[in-house]
Amino acid sequence: MGLAGESTNMDHVRLSDDGKYVVILDQSKLPSETEYRTLKSAEDIYEAIFRLRVRGAPAIGICAGYGMYCLAQTIHEEDYETFKSRFVEYGDYLNGSRPTAVNLSWAIKRMTAVVEGNSHKPVKDILPLLERECRAIHQEDIRMCRAISEFGLSLIKDGDGILTHCNAGPLATSRYGTALGPLILGKERGMEFHVFADETRPLLQGARLTAYELVKAGIDVTLICDNMAGTVMKNGWVSACFVGCDRVAANGDTANKIGTSVVAVLAKYYGIPFYVLGPTSTIDMECASGEDIEIEERDPDEIKKMFYQKPMALEEVKCYNPAFDVTDHSLISGIITEKGICRPPYEDSLKALFIPDPHQL
Amino acid sequence: MGLAGESTNMDHVRLSDDGKYVVILDQSKLPSETEYRTLKSAEDIYEAIFRLRVRGAPAIGICAGYGMYCLAQTIHEEDYETFKSRFVEYGDYLNGSRPTAVNLSWAIKRMTAVVEGNSHKPVKDILPLLERECRAIHQEDIRMCRAISEFGLSLIKDGDGILTHCNAGPLATSRYGTALGPLILGKERGMEFHVFADETRPLLQGARLTAYELVKAGIDVTLICDNMAGTVMKNGWVSACFVGCDRVAANGDTANKIGTSVVAVLAKYYGIPFYVLGPTSTIDMECASGEDIEIEERDPDEIKKMFYQKPMALEEVKCYNPAFDVTDHSLISGIITEKGICRPPYEDSLKALFIPDPHQL
Repeated sequence: MGLAGESTNMDHVRLSDDGKYVVILDQSKLPSETEYRTLKSAEDIYEAIFRLRVRGAPAIGICAGYGMYCLAQTIHEEDYETFKSRFVEYGDYLNGSRPTAVNLSWAIKRMTAVVEGNSHKPVKDILPLLERECRAIHQEDIRMCRAISEFGLSLIKDGDGILTHCNAGPLATSRYGTALGPLILGKERGMEFHVFADETRPLLQGARLTAYELVKAGIDVTLICDNMAGTVMKNGWVSACFVGCDRVAANGDTANKIGTSVVAVLAKYYGIPFYVLGPTSTIDMECASGEDIEIEERDPDEIKKMFYQKPMALEEVKCYNPAFDVTDHSLISGIITEKGICRPPYEDSLKALFIPDPHQL
Repeated sequence: MGLAGESTNMDHVRLSDDGKYVVILDQSKLPSETEYRTLKSAEDIYEAIFRLRVRGAPAIGICAGYGMYCLAQTIHEEDYETFKSRFVEYGDYLNGSRPTAVNLSWAIKRMTAVVEGNSHKPVKDILPLLERECRAIHQEDIRMCRAISEFGLSLIKDGDGILTHCNAGPLATSRYGTALGPLILGKERGMEFHVFADETRPLLQGARLTAYELVKAGIDVTLICDNMAGTVMKNGWVSACFVGCDRVAANGDTANKIGTSVVAVLAKYYGIPFYVLGPTSTIDMECASGEDIEIEERDPDEIKKMFYQKPMALEEVKCYNPAFDVTDHSLISGIITEKGICRPPYEDSLKALFIPDPHQL
């Protein structure tokens, strides 16, 4: 069955059996250790997101949804206004754990809307609605990943070489994943791909997570350093690039893991299509362009020390450590969502995603 | 005095005081340990080059020159033909330690030419000529680096941001270095630069050596992961890119550390000049284009395990680990040698370097 099948039984982000806590597979320990972690407090959830124990925009959204439900259960207040104010406080707190991923605030907003939309109900009756909502966020993500995988698969053929950056597989999302989804789905249907996984410095999500997931799924994967992407493209080994996204602006500018824009520039130069895959929840129509996307800057020690036995640079060496970059829309061949494939100009094609289908009104 | 001054007294590659052995600063131990190593046998020299204890094309050339002299002293043969045949054997052996750097074979050829050009002399009289030749290789490199530094400095101005990849500083060469030479020379003249040093995976020469050298020279340096080069360029922080070279083909195609071509593609995309700096000994006019340059592929464990406490990828994960890439001449704004700055078309400008100056005939 491969990884998609495995994860049906064992989701990487889920509610504990008693429904009180969030349980996550600690991605920061992979590939050496497979350790599940139970998050029991707001601080636990914040720390898990901040420390990348749970990472990938959709997985963060799912974690935040479950997290808000669990935290709601800890607010022992019968007064609606007090309950709501405590709930909103928790949301604001969690929202600060990662600034770039839109799914975090999106999931918190969805959960908050449930509280706000039921002000007439007793607090105890709101809790089951919150549970339904967070489980819905997760189930919707599974369906979305499946749909994205189908659309993505239509863009490639058996035997293709695919380059991917960072990790947008099952771990980052649910089940199939986004950028890796078409590959896992294609593999289930007997297709073979040759995947080049950028290791993705500084935190090596490509080496630790993508290569791990693809090996487990039985897909041919070759790990490369980020600076080797140009060479494998020049060698003619890459038919398409598939990457995930943390936030897509209304004009198609896409924030994703640092280095994504480098892959896009290289793909343009070598004439290789570059595709962004993500759910519509990642598209932020209130954000006009990449210039409006805040890029978090992280600890220099991620570059200088993390994972190393000894420092790799002198103590005095300054580092610049942006966690993401923005890929200009002009470099993107298509944005693949659960609703279909958007092509340039993105102002129009992305906007069309949010126009209600008249047949469903 | 800074590093250039320091290294006047303590060259990183030199003959031992008794003139019998090669002494090198073990670059593989930097920046944590400053350890000099005495190379006493052909195997020691081979291993030091192969394991990157001495690295950087000019430094390898200097090491090979001194090495051939030291090995010649161990051939206790009075018969010229036997001496020569043993000498050539040593040369062939050392030549296999790194296939890409042209300076290695170039230095061995120069030393061999001394042996071949003096077949009428007793073997014992050839030894002093070999010593003179290897010391000349070193001294010429110092003069060349100085000249390259002057030409390079003419391309930038006080306050500029410079991006560099891998290490082409004093450690890789002698004294000033090539790509870092203009910065060290400018600093000596009171200029300030803001240098962005790509860490340069997999072996992190940028983090371990370039950042080390620039900090020691008092130059403002910011270490970045290779995949952040696009972002610092997009941010407008980079006025020019300076890189070294391992081999330049007759058409200007340049082999250098893996990832160099990525920097060049990015520089082209962001409209930033990209300069290659190196001595004319690095230009291989017998090599028509980059397609004729052999690229060595190195151990996957450099990506998966080196410097790490625990493996960063599953044992089953395949790696592709080319040590160099070739930057197409169309991406190169200029090639700076000790004889001047070559501009496109390189077929003409590089060829002109090798036409004897009629005023010096």
